[in-house]
Amino acid sequence: MLNRVVVAPSGFKESLSAQAAADAIAAGVRRVLPDAEIDRIPLVDGGEGTAVALASATGGRLVALAATGPVGEPVGTHFALLGARQDTAVVEMAAVAGLSLVPRALRDPGATTTYGVGELIRAALDTGVRRVLVGCGDSGTSDGGAGALRALGARLLDADGFELPPGGRELVRLARVDPSGLDGRLADTELLVACNPYNVLCGERGVARVFGPQKGATPAQVEELSAGLENWARVLTRDLGVVGTELRDAPGTGASGGLGAGLAAVGARLLPRFDVLLDHLGLDARLARADLVLTAEGALDRQTPRGKVPAEVARRAKLHGRPVLALAGTLGEGAHDVPGVDACHGIMPAPMALADALARAAELLTDATERALRMVLLGSRLPGRAAAQAASEAEARAAVSAEVVSGTQRPSSVR
Amino acid sequence: MLNRVVVAPSGFKESLSAQAAADAIAAGVRRVLPDAEIDRIPLVDGGEGTAVALASATGGRLVALAATGPVGEPVGTHFALLGARQDTAVVEMAAVAGLSLVPRALRDPGATTTYGVGELIRAALDTGVRRVLVGCGDSGTSDGGAGALRALGARLLDADGFELPPGGRELVRLARVDPSGLDGRLADTELLVACNPYNVLCGERGVARVFGPQKGATPAQVEELSAGLENWARVLTRDLGVVGTELRDAPGTGASGGLGAGLAAVGARLLPRFDVLLDHLGLDARLARADLVLTAEGALDRQTPRGKVPAEVARRAKLHGRPVLALAGTLGEGAHDVPGVDACHGIMPAPMALADALARAAELLTDATERALRMVLLGSRLPGRAAAQAASEAEARAAVSAEVVSGTQRPSSVR
Repeated sequence: MLNRVVVAPSGFKESLSAQAAADAIAAGVRRVLPDAEIDRIPLVDGGEGTAVALASATGGRLVALAATGPVGEPVGTHFALLGARQDTAVVEMAAVAGLSLVPRALRDPGATTTYGVGELIRAALDTGVRRVLVGCGDSGTSDGGAGALRALGARLLDADGFELPPGGRELVRLARVDPSGLDGRLADTELLVACNPYNVLCGERGVARVFGPQKGATPAQVEELSAGLENWARVLTRDLGVVGTELRDAPGTGASGGLGAGLAAVGARLLPRFDVLLDHLGLDARLARADLVLTAEGALDRQTPRGKVPAEVARRAKLHGRPVLALAGTLGEGAHDVPGVDACHGIMPAPMALADALARAAELLTDATERALRMVLLGSRLPGRAAAQAASEAEARAAVSAEVVSGTQRPSSVR
Repeated sequence: MLNRVVVAPSGFKESLSAQAAADAIAAGVRRVLPDAEIDRIPLVDGGEGTAVALASATGGRLVALAATGPVGEPVGTHFALLGARQDTAVVEMAAVAGLSLVPRALRDPGATTTYGVGELIRAALDTGVRRVLVGCGDSGTSDGGAGALRALGARLLDADGFELPPGGRELVRLARVDPSGLDGRLADTELLVACNPYNVLCGERGVARVFGPQKGATPAQVEELSAGLENWARVLTRDLGVVGTELRDAPGTGASGGLGAGLAAVGARLLPRFDVLLDHLGLDARLARADLVLTAEGALDRQTPRGKVPAEVARRAKLHGRPVLALAGTLGEGAHDVPGVDACHGIMPAPMALADALARAAELLTDATERALRMVLLGSRLPGRAAAQAASEAEARAAVSAEVVSGTQRPSSVR
């Protein structure tokens, strides 16, 4: 009945990696269904852990190197080469420009840079690959990818012809972009950016307004960054001759503080992150074989359907008609209404402070999984509709065969 | 499949009455199963709300009066007369000597008195009833029922022949009990005390040690009370010629600060509270008709099997083979291991302070019920063992009928 359970969680921000979440959930499943086959698929969304997870899932490898971090200091980082053929590189922006690399005291999104992302792309190209997948998410920057373009050879000039210093706040002074020094290998490279398509560069739902505050921007800084990114989109479109992508507000342009827009200007394709990431994990085939799908994220709320892991897992599971149960540390407004999620379950066993919940997340998740599965099992043992329906279908089938058996000996009028 | 759901919760201490809890749960059930019949059975345990609930459930009435409260001041109180015949009175000790009637500043269990309980019993006898049910629980006293016995006419004397002042702390000085003035009607009255049988008067698990601290006793006071109750049991047994009940530690002697022992000394029978209370609600017959039983209490933990509502509901539901799901605000150690409870569910949707949880208890309980039922429904729709079994039984039945149909036209050798 529950012979095969797929465990496909996101990480829990600030407490559990996706792998740790999958392990915690699997432990809870094991307590209730000791004999079930549990298929753990820790899910990546392009942010922290993406390169490691994809290298591991595909049997590829990590390349370690130093590059420029978000505040300009060198950091130890890595990119991934996927699979045995190693013809695709994965550059995880969070590994070189992520929020966790920005010391709390230096959280000024007007100053941080994606320069290291450009360095990683060049290092990847140095290995000979001509297919680079850039994972967005968990960024600490709001420079529109300006730093990355500089690292790739572009020059960003003010009205007097001087190069701009790093940081999104300078973009409002940008007068011209000189692309003449751009790395020539980009021309024959397939550059794919795995984005949350709901993130756009400019406007009311623009990246500075939506994410600036959580990266440490004051309201005045948000307005300054918004104006800078508007200017950035305008100048890039003009000077790089961008056609086909509206840098201001095409889906994904706002990914990772606008890195999406910057890379799109040098020819990258912005792709919905799950479309480009999950295929490497064979997710669909594994969901298709599940009797039950468990997914999870730190919070389940109105944002969940806007491109979060549980919504994507539920969407794909439903293509195969699989039941989906979502676990979360926080069930907010809208948690009961995520399309494709049949039931949701909060992991808190009692009134508890957030800090305690974060510290005990793995244990709470395991216990909650046990409870959720016991409720599911309770339901599965109810006599009733499902059983009655199966029974009546079986009776119908048997009745048909009875007709067949008996019909051969009945009067012809019955035939 | 889930046509009939029994909702049989306890109250949630400090936030919801049993009736309010039942209403909140029913609202959650309604969201998921709009057509189900929901049978609400708010459960009483002898404590606060018992008299009102039993009067209401049986179509009886309440008698309002003034009596002596736990700190010696008069309080407005009531007792119940059950059913149409009104031949049984219910005296709820919490209504005249409960902890909530003791102002926080006066929480000294060495000083509070059960005098009002004795007054209520006499008032009940004045109506002509000769069957009085005393509900224990939620008491603010630790006087061993000494106050109640004084109100019923006994004299409690010290070594010099002076009457003791009220309060458990005086009992250590008790030298003699003079029963000559006891109300003569007690002799032909059936006095029943609804107790938690796990509560005993003396010893390591004695009432002063287990409950004294939460009634406001210091460690020194706990020892003083314990010594007083030891003396009380000894003197009562001797001077009232108590036989057949070991006042020190028979089940229920510790109920309501030892009220059980005091009343037992004047002929009361100490009965497990649920045995004597739940029959008035027709609980068993209603459980027998349930497709699912939902119970609830503020906390589910190692104490639950020791005579709490969810354990009792589960025990009785299991006599009829009914599935039981328990909801709780706090799932503590042992919550997963309550006998008869198939699954449990915490109502917290997120990290949250206790005060917030108490203030929002009804809403949280409704939402949590919805989530729990959705998990149960998810399980009920799984194809699988139960369904497969029903199907194979149906096929077997159909195959038999096919044999019968076709057999009549087969050669006789087959018959």
